[in-house]
Amino acid sequence: MARVVVDVMLKPEILDPQGQAIAAAGSRLGFEGLKEVRQGKRFEVEIDGELDDAAVAEVRRMAETLLANTVIEEFEVRPAS
Amino acid sequence: MARVVVDVMLKPEILDPQGQAIAAAGSRLGFEGLKEVRQGKRFEVEIDGELDDAAVAEVRRMAETLLANTVIEEFEVRPAS
Repeated sequence: MARVVVDVMLKPEILDPQGQAIAAAGSRLGFEGLKEVRQGKRFEVEIDGELDDAAVAEVRRMAETLLANTVIEEFEVRPAS
Repeated sequence: MARVVVDVMLKPEILDPQGQAIAAAGSRLGFEGLKEVRQGKRFEVEIDGELDDAAVAEVRRMAETLLANTVIEEFEVRPAS
């Protein structure tokens, strides 16, 4: 049993109104020095068996087809620390 | 200018129907060895100035009050790699 983390974020060129709303709320609440907030998704995927290259490749394929919309999002797959 | 990452996940004892739906969809789509998927949020926070202890503490305070619902969620704050 192994755990893989998939981080999905909007591509940098895609506007993130949700993040902007959070940044505005943070400033209003008095948090200082906030320049930008971007919100994305984090998936923790638990898989059977060893965390070998094939398993990571399988999760990467899943990230590409199911977890991320690669038109507007980018993703990163890595073993959970 | 520095970037801090805040990961917010449901506490392990909290049911995650969204993650369950993703795991079911993944299995249906033929991804093998999927045991569990849990979905959380990832925030990238850009702050002015140096990434010193005070800045990280400020982001941690923001995570606690604005980004995470600490009744059902746990969070982790770390400098972006």
